[in-house]
Amino acid sequence: MTGTDVYANDGAKIGHIDHMMIDKQSGKVAYAVMGFGGFLGMGEDHHPVPWGKLRYDTVKQGFITDLTEEEVKGAPPRSAEWPADPDWERRTHAHYGVPLYWA
Amino acid sequence: MTGTDVYANDGAKIGHIDHMMIDKQSGKVAYAVMGFGGFLGMGEDHHPVPWGKLRYDTVKQGFITDLTEEEVKGAPPRSAEWPADPDWERRTHAHYGVPLYWA
Repeated sequence: MTGTDVYANDGAKIGHIDHMMIDKQSGKVAYAVMGFGGFLGMGEDHHPVPWGKLRYDTVKQGFITDLTEEEVKGAPPRSAEWPADPDWERRTHAHYGVPLYWA
Repeated sequence: MTGTDVYANDGAKIGHIDHMMIDKQSGKVAYAVMGFGGFLGMGEDHHPVPWGKLRYDTVKQGFITDLTEEEVKGAPPRSAEWPADPDWERRTHAHYGVPLYWA
């Protein structure tokens, strides 16, 4: 999983999976922590992206997303307690426009 | 997740999570690859255990399982293509008596 490429809808590679954050109770991926290798000038920071933003493409053997630079830059900053911070989780999912993974 | 302890029903520590195998399509954990540090004489091998065998205990901050040494030793050997081998997956889940994660 680590290192899997992530592509935009137009096929351009925009980053990769650094690691997954898993909800231990449900066994579901909650967040993909992504590295953006210079995606639109963002540098090499890692950002948690809700799992609902990604879908796996078996042909490309990578994930496809409609994520934009603005979305990532405008996302709620991580608190020290993330992801065990329901308020941060709610704001983050609302920001990205995807359902909460526990819904 | 890596390193999280796994306990038997009686509270004895029997191993730990080495890593998780995630189904990329659904974002669900398919297998926990567990290390058994001498659990009933099993040595340090790693064995894939279906996610359905584990439940997370928030008090212990670890997983609880009814896994036995016999179950682990008697499990179908991993083929080269595991886990992308539906036949191996079916036999493994049947062996451990838990539903397929994609069911």
